[in-house]
Amino acid sequence: MKIGVLTSGGDCPGLNAVIRGIVRKGIRSHEDTFVGIRDGWRGLLEDDVFDMTMLDVRGLSGRGGTILGTSRTHPYEGGGPERMREVMTAHGIDAIVAIGGEGTLAGASRLVNEEGLNIIGVPKTIDNDLSGTDYTFGFDSAQAIATESIDRLRTTAESHHRCMVIEVMGRNVGWIALHAGMAGGAHAILMPEFPVSFDQIEEWVTSARDRGRAPIVVVAEGFIPEGLDEQVADRGVDNKGRTRLGGIADFLAPKIEEITGIESRATILGHLQRGGSPTAYDRVLSTRLGMAAADLAHNGDWGKMASLKGTDIVSVDMASAVDRLKSVPLQRWEEAQVLFG
Amino acid sequence: MKIGVLTSGGDCPGLNAVIRGIVRKGIRSHEDTFVGIRDGWRGLLEDDVFDMTMLDVRGLSGRGGTILGTSRTHPYEGGGPERMREVMTAHGIDAIVAIGGEGTLAGASRLVNEEGLNIIGVPKTIDNDLSGTDYTFGFDSAQAIATESIDRLRTTAESHHRCMVIEVMGRNVGWIALHAGMAGGAHAILMPEFPVSFDQIEEWVTSARDRGRAPIVVVAEGFIPEGLDEQVADRGVDNKGRTRLGGIADFLAPKIEEITGIESRATILGHLQRGGSPTAYDRVLSTRLGMAAADLAHNGDWGKMASLKGTDIVSVDMASAVDRLKSVPLQRWEEAQVLFG
Amino acid sequence: MKIGVLTSGGDCPGLNAVIRGIVRKGIRSHEDTFVGIRDGWRGLLEDDVFDMTMLDVRGLSGRGGTILGTSRTHPYEGGGPERMREVMTAHGIDAIVAIGGEGTLAGASRLVNEEGLNIIGVPKTIDNDLSGTDYTFGFDSAQAIATESIDRLRTTAESHHRCMVIEVMGRNVGWIALHAGMAGGAHAILMPEFPVSFDQIEEWVTSARDRGRAPIVVVAEGFIPEGLDEQVADRGVDNKGRTRLGGIADFLAPKIEEITGIESRATILGHLQRGGSPTAYDRVLSTRLGMAAADLAHNGDWGKMASLKGTDIVSVDMASAVDRLKSVPLQRWEEAQVLFG
Amino acid sequence: MKIGVLTSGGDCPGLNAVIRGIVRKGIRSHEDTFVGIRDGWRGLLEDDVFDMTMLDVRGLSGRGGTILGTSRTHPYEGGGPERMREVMTAHGIDAIVAIGGEGTLAGASRLVNEEGLNIIGVPKTIDNDLSGTDYTFGFDSAQAIATESIDRLRTTAESHHRCMVIEVMGRNVGWIALHAGMAGGAHAILMPEFPVSFDQIEEWVTSARDRGRAPIVVVAEGFIPEGLDEQVADRGVDNKGRTRLGGIADFLAPKIEEITGIESRATILGHLQRGGSPTAYDRVLSTRLGMAAADLAHNGDWGKMASLKGTDIVSVDMASAVDRLKSVPLQRWEEAQVLFG
Repeated sequence: MKIGVLTSGGDCPGLNAVIRGIVRKGIRSHEDTFVGIRDGWRGLLEDDVFDMTMLDVRGLSGRGGTILGTSRTHPYEGGGPERMREVMTAHGIDAIVAIGGEGTLAGASRLVNEEGLNIIGVPKTIDNDLSGTDYTFGFDSAQAIATESIDRLRTTAESHHRCMVIEVMGRNVGWIALHAGMAGGAHAILMPEFPVSFDQIEEWVTSARDRGRAPIVVVAEGFIPEGLDEQVADRGVDNKGRTRLGGIADFLAPKIEEITGIESRATILGHLQRGGSPTAYDRVLSTRLGMAAADLAHNGDWGKMASLKGTDIVSVDMASAVDRLKSVPLQRWEEAQVLFG
Repeated sequence: MKIGVLTSGGDCPGLNAVIRGIVRKGIRSHEDTFVGIRDGWRGLLEDDVFDMTMLDVRGLSGRGGTILGTSRTHPYEGGGPERMREVMTAHGIDAIVAIGGEGTLAGASRLVNEEGLNIIGVPKTIDNDLSGTDYTFGFDSAQAIATESIDRLRTTAESHHRCMVIEVMGRNVGWIALHAGMAGGAHAILMPEFPVSFDQIEEWVTSARDRGRAPIVVVAEGFIPEGLDEQVADRGVDNKGRTRLGGIADFLAPKIEEITGIESRATILGHLQRGGSPTAYDRVLSTRLGMAAADLAHNGDWGKMASLKGTDIVSVDMASAVDRLKSVPLQRWEEAQVLFG
Repeated sequence: MKIGVLTSGGDCPGLNAVIRGIVRKGIRSHEDTFVGIRDGWRGLLEDDVFDMTMLDVRGLSGRGGTILGTSRTHPYEGGGPERMREVMTAHGIDAIVAIGGEGTLAGASRLVNEEGLNIIGVPKTIDNDLSGTDYTFGFDSAQAIATESIDRLRTTAESHHRCMVIEVMGRNVGWIALHAGMAGGAHAILMPEFPVSFDQIEEWVTSARDRGRAPIVVVAEGFIPEGLDEQVADRGVDNKGRTRLGGIADFLAPKIEEITGIESRATILGHLQRGGSPTAYDRVLSTRLGMAAADLAHNGDWGKMASLKGTDIVSVDMASAVDRLKSVPLQRWEEAQVLFG
Repeated sequence: MKIGVLTSGGDCPGLNAVIRGIVRKGIRSHEDTFVGIRDGWRGLLEDDVFDMTMLDVRGLSGRGGTILGTSRTHPYEGGGPERMREVMTAHGIDAIVAIGGEGTLAGASRLVNEEGLNIIGVPKTIDNDLSGTDYTFGFDSAQAIATESIDRLRTTAESHHRCMVIEVMGRNVGWIALHAGMAGGAHAILMPEFPVSFDQIEEWVTSARDRGRAPIVVVAEGFIPEGLDEQVADRGVDNKGRTRLGGIADFLAPKIEEITGIESRATILGHLQRGGSPTAYDRVLSTRLGMAAADLAHNGDWGKMASLKGTDIVSVDMASAVDRLKSVPLQRWEEAQVLFG
């Protein structure tokens, strides 16, 4: 059996470990062969593929990025399913393992169900907002980098008696903010799921200051203060949903300084959170997901993806990963607030 | 309600985050008060306690070690339950949260069931060998340090075309070896649960060498090669179960060099794996376990411990953590072998 | 002899190690006593001081920030030299060790020469732009963090075939950009000392792309492209010298995308570079500088500062540190360009 | 001009950055061509070489180990200078850049002076014991890893009220011990240059304990306690000069426990100190040394090596690097003792 592998969407620590897991497992357990598809769906649509052997995946478990390259090309662009089928036939590719996020998995699911293509998924997002899996790989690396950054910024905050506002990834969900904020000892964590008012933020910040702490505020990029949509809108939002004057932290820091009188500084971690070598946790998870995906592909379980449940790697419908956003539940939000202020 | 907190047994990254979680949650949600008990059961038996406030636990989420100190004092030493009750009464302590490993939890469970003491547990071991919880805090930090060490040693191995034998913790189970080995791209992982022969080790090592790799062998300290007990016994074992001539890696490296002809070196990570700042993963897990333990104590759920199940913190019987060793299951061993050689 | 210690200006890794070095050396070698002065000159002007013992400096060698706090209060504010003398007399303080940057050392030098105050200096800046010393402490930590960030961002750049523009500190000099860019394998390094044209930047970026690399551009915050002052001025500059639309990287990334056609992203490291635990190099340098400063103070070498020359700690006039900015010499710029493109 | 490059002796962080510096500088500035020589002198003696282009050295600045491989083959083995000349002639190699330690540089110096071979050196040792250069590359990475390890071990020491004895590299000199010990806040640093008695060690250890600290003892592998040679000799020494029962730390820890009554543990860092990605400091130094060596080779300065003096890269006789061991000077030893106990 010949299996194509592609990575699609944003870079994510662990992609290379997934690829290695797929190839080693497929070759060793099933004697399958593999082709690498360059830059996600683009490579499949433009016939940009190469034979991928054990040699190509050696030493990949700890390497950041993806050796296959990635892009945001949509599977229904440029020829779409027809063209894919053509390329697959030309190379004798029996199946595709698509490693990607919500868009990729939704597209792949449709390609399976509507077009009858043979596709297996591996869920990928540093945001951890995919349903159908306990955690996604890449999330642990992102929370680790964000936590290390908070640790660093805290020393400056304390030396200068300042408030630090740290913006982490999470356009729709607050998982990175919640975990990194909890790990870093934040005095307020602000997430898209739970809009809070400036009064509330002020209370947390001044309460920390009054206890002699330098207030640390961790905010997910998608957070919007309660009742402030209009004001934010006035500042203008670019086509990626980001405010024109920088991130939300750039908006919050001067606002906090204004209402609390505490000198405040903003830091936007941005792309730092998605690059570099994955954590040990992510390497193990990625490797196991890859190996499971190789089995699913070999068994012809089209439309399935490998996912984490407790300590086990299981198989679920790709559709289940994308039917709803996995946001931070209310109970976790309440749990975390005990640590605020 | 006044609650005493103690940490017992070996140092473990995350202990301070647990303590902080307990104290913040108890004070904020329940208006409980806290006393710190120094050096595990010793402090309780010798009346070495102090009032512990929010101030004492500030900034602890990322700090390694335990501010309470720890010891291996057994709860039935020096006065035992009678003496504990005396000290608790003298200070008005209503309940104890005991953070510890197998021995601590077994002792605490007995103190609850046989002596009627009010004790809540939090499971702790970097070895991850406690039942009743998906993972224990400290394990992720240990696997992270071990993985980073393997990354380092690999460059020397490749430059010198050597085999590196890296000994990690795990006297009875191979969890750290399994995860760090998988994360670090090991060509052989040796665990107490699965004795393998020298022939098998030779095959893995030479297979890696024949593919042009510098063989990496990760071995848990408790591994004994198949059929070799007698030989090991001859070398002599000290009273902590360690062979007199160093660890198992010191035994394996020259042996591997002898049978494969590949220059081999041993590294024993030892205490490096249990110290230092916990990973973000461990900080979040520890904090949540601590907060849950504060609730269990306040609710009087004596004999229970806080544990991880999937993504949730739940409550289980302390006894369930210690009734059997959580060893690496056969399926994980088979899964991992695809990556060997 | 009683010696006051203060830290002034921006936070810098190694400040605590300097403080520890001063106190341990002074107590052990000279039986001097010490007072900590809070928040730089402010503490001296406002009589905010405390007795500082061996206990206060324990465990400080690796801790980021400054236990003394810092501020940008000018020594001639609020009473100035007269007030300082008053406070010093009231507490019996014989001398001050001032740890600070250009402004601090210039102020201290004037206080010695014009007012006859007993002051010793320790030069501090992560920017490394002080004359009179080979390197300043904090610079190594800053270059280390910047280098690690470049390593991370590279994986994302390569996966997406993007250009990454990374802004590091250096308002007037390019030391951090030069070293981190060289260490991180940058394809272009842009520094205030050497304005280059957009044509030159385009050449470096496209040359790297044409060799199959994802171009990495490291830019010091103070860099202004050749011939572009007016355009930048139009964008507006805030009162800290930063352009209103973010940093120079926010300006360069879209510009590079426009002229080269390569998708480009900006990351501004900002405060991340000055916080957190110092590198081993900085800890050793800081400790040695602190110990030497204690000797200078005990010997009454007023107006001198401890500085690094080769492998030795020597004593130079404070004035020599501030008489000219230590910018990157032409020879280093030429040396580095071999690595560009 | 065609230049061969070889790396010889033990692995060292920065080797790859040196190689990259040589090749990029030589190609870009002088249009020289390069061959890589595999495994040190072995590759030259056995004609194991390959053409080395810009492509071969891409992305190397941060990578540990050496892509050329290394060995301890002596240049006068297997044919010696005659054979080298043969291989050089056969490939049209005009000159060799030899990156290596004392043995390599001594051998290369002799090959230049006695045999008239065209060789340039780059001094390499993590031990920093070569004269003729302020620091050697690799040393900073080694001290960084050792310091990070001390930081980790300290938390365990404090939690258990133990003494930790940490053995670092340094068979003949104490540079790593001195710097890492100072950076890590050690209470005693033991170096080959300065034998001290057990009474002195006891005093430092108990003094730290009496101040409430968990004593940290950092020892270079080559340290021998004053007056103890005979006793150590009795324990037996293997053919690499290491005592049969492990390192000196394994000997010291139980001894310290015996004489002070403080529970003590040994950790031997071993190969961890020489692997992995180099620090930013080492990457910059290595790159600059490599670039300077390319110039020396192109200019025909045979017998010279690139070295660091202050902030400059200069050229000195290879012989000057090896005419005497650069040991820790008495003044640094006295300076450090202020921090002990």
